[in-house]
Order: sequence, then structure tokens, then C-alpha cells
Amino acid sequence: MAVGDEIVACCGGVDYLCRLEKISDTAVLAAVLSEEPSKEPSVYLTLYQAVPKLDKLELIVQKSVELGASKIVPVLTKRCISRPEKAQFEKKRERLQRISLEAAKQSGRGIIPEVSGIISFDECLRAMKTHGFGLMCYEKGGRRLSETVAPDTRDVGLLIGPEGGFEPEEAERAENAGIARIWLGDRILRCETAPIAAISVIMNLTNNI
Amino acid sequence: MAVGDEIVACCGGVDYLCRLEKISDTAVLAAVLSEEPSKEPSVYLTLYQAVPKLDKLELIVQKSVELGASKIVPVLTKRCISRPEKAQFEKKRERLQRISLEAAKQSGRGIIPEVSGIISFDECLRAMKTHGFGLMCYEKGGRRLSETVAPDTRDVGLLIGPEGGFEPEEAERAENAGIARIWLGDRILRCETAPIAAISVIMNLTNNI
Repeated sequence: MAVGDEIVACCGGVDYLCRLEKISDTAVLAAVLSEEPSKEPSVYLTLYQAVPKLDKLELIVQKSVELGASKIVPVLTKRCISRPEKAQFEKKRERLQRISLEAAKQSGRGIIPEVSGIISFDECLRAMKTHGFGLMCYEKGGRRLSETVAPDTRDVGLLIGPEGGFEPEEAERAENAGIARIWLGDRILRCETAPIAAISVIMNLTNNI
Repeated sequence: MAVGDEIVACCGGVDYLCRLEKISDTAVLAAVLSEEPSKEPSVYLTLYQAVPKLDKLELIVQKSVELGASKIVPVLTKRCISRPEKAQFEKKRERLQRISLEAAKQSGRGIIPEVSGIISFDECLRAMKTHGFGLMCYEKGGRRLSETVAPDTRDVGLLIGPEGGFEPEEAERAENAGIARIWLGDRILRCETAPIAAISVIMNLTNNI
């Protein structure tokens, strides 16, 4: 880029349209031409995703960020086939964070959604209590998303199982922790399709799609 | 499999639960134990997808079939980067049809959605007139899916552009042909994310998710 080119700088929920004024080896000076609130979704959606195979997790991170998720938290559940150690996952997490950055840039997000380290199912149940409410996709059925998500929903945690689904005991514990079971239709979705479909529908129900 | 095993045979919109009775080199005889209507979505959704790179088209076919699309029609538009000849595409079509079959089996569909040969944009505009109504995702905005799709929608054609979007002239011609422009949110979706998100939302609006 050169002096005179325009860039958009995203910072603290504001998009600043700027013109480059001075470029040196150590710094770039830009003049703010205009500013507007960044077009972030009205709902802060945290995806708690049971760890699938890595290529599927990459797809999930990319698509979730494009569709407006604000944070992605990998969770280790009983039936996870891929079971990386926490330390071992750290390298993969860097790669996933880069995918989030690329997807955020490409889709015009105002934030770079964080991909956190892996947490346990217990930690997940505790973390989901911090949201307005929690939902889990469960293949044995539940309520429809339309019955649980209102247009003014501002903060939601969404829990999705691994390739083999949740253990019945896990589903029960989640329900006891106040997490509502939702139904995603009669077609059985792969573990990477379920979050993409659920986030799309939640964004529609909150008027962001 | 062996005699005594149970299978589900899908035929003409009915799922037959059967028990294998006799297996020879040339035929399998099964007794019908019970039957029920297959759990196909209430809406017949045809996806008209401008041809993207092949790996993206594979993802689109797999996810569209899982989510309940009934037919996928690749369309050649002005900005398609990948421009296979019709004959050349035929081999790829076989591979895409196998992906549809696998996705249909995995998700429990009652039909194997067809992946058709490539058609031109002119042919697409004509074909879309055969549906209850037609929608196109357009990055410059339009109506929300919630404003266009009713719970009792039975037949819809959905047109999605290639990586570089539609030419303004194409968008205008589509609009003149009665195809409604829809808006998929302020985040710019990749050409493979748009159909997955739109189909998810349409399935929700018609009570199939």
C-alpha cells in the first residue's frame, strides 16, 4: 500500500475509515476520514464445540466466524475421537486463531473471535452458566430454535457434540445445568454441519441474517 | 450383512423397515416389517449454484443434501472463475452425485438429490420460473428470508453467485425475471457459506429445522 490509500481500522467496536499519510519502517500514520460502529451481530454467540477431527474444526471456526459467532471454545467430551493433550492442542490453536483472523477479515467482522484452549465438559457446564442462556443440539430431540431464541437475545452459549454425539449421561448433566435441548430437524447432521446450521438460524431469529 | 439383519429400504417416499430373509449372488430377499413415510422436508428446495472451485462445490453438495435440499443445479455465470466445458464437467458430476448419495445415506434422506449438468444463466432464469418462487442472495442487499419464505412454502428455487458475485446486469435480469433479492446479513459470506446458511434458514422458516 502507499500514501494516499484508504484503509479501514477496526478498534473497540468502531470501524475507522483512514487515509495513509506516512509510512516508515516502524510506523504507519493515517488520518481518520470517518467512523461508524462496526457491523457486529446484536447477539454475542459463544460456540462450545466438542473436539472433532482437526480439519472439521478448521471448517467450523471459519464458518462460525463468517456467520457472526464471537468466541469458539473447544470442549473435550466422552465420545471425542480426537483427544489432543492441552499442551499439544496449543499449536493447533494458533492455526485455528489464524483461520479466525482470515475469516474475520474476509467477512468484515469488527472483532477477531477468540479460539480458546480446550476445556473439560465440567468446565463447559460452568462456563455456559455465564451466558443469558445455553442451548445444546441433541439428536434425540428437543425444542425448536424458534421457540428458544427471541429477536432481542443478546448472549447465548451453544453446545455441539462430537462425531458420535453426547453420552446420555452428559446430555442429562447439561439439562440439569439448565441447558435447553434443541432439535435441528429429522435429518442427521454431521458434527461440523450442526453448528453452521444452528448459528445461521440463531442469526436469523435475532434479525442478523 | 447376514440373514436376520434389518435394513431400511427407501423407495418412492416411503421408508420400509425390512429383515433380510435370503441372500444369493444375484438377489437379496427381505420381508417388510413396517413402513412409514420418509422424513423428507416439507419444502422442495432446488439450489442453483454458480460454479465455484470444485472443492467448494463438493462441500456445497454435501451440506445442502444434509440440510434437505432436493436438487442441485450448477450454473455458469459471468464471473465464474472455474469454467468447465459441459462434457468435461460430466466426470466431476459423477463424483458430486456420489457425494450426494453418501450425504443422503448419512443424514437419513428419503431421496438421493440429483446434481444436474451445468446450465447457462439464461437456462437458469427459465428453470427458476418453474418453482413456486425464486430467491437470489445478493451482496448489495434485498429482503430478509423471513419476509419471503412462509411456513407453508412448498417449492423454492435458490440462486447463489460465484466467488466474485453477480454482475449488476445479471442481478437486474434475475430481478426482471421475478427472482427476489435476499440479504444474508452484514457479514460477507463466502460463496460456499451463503447456500449453507440460506438453506438452514429456509428449513427453519418452513419448520423443518
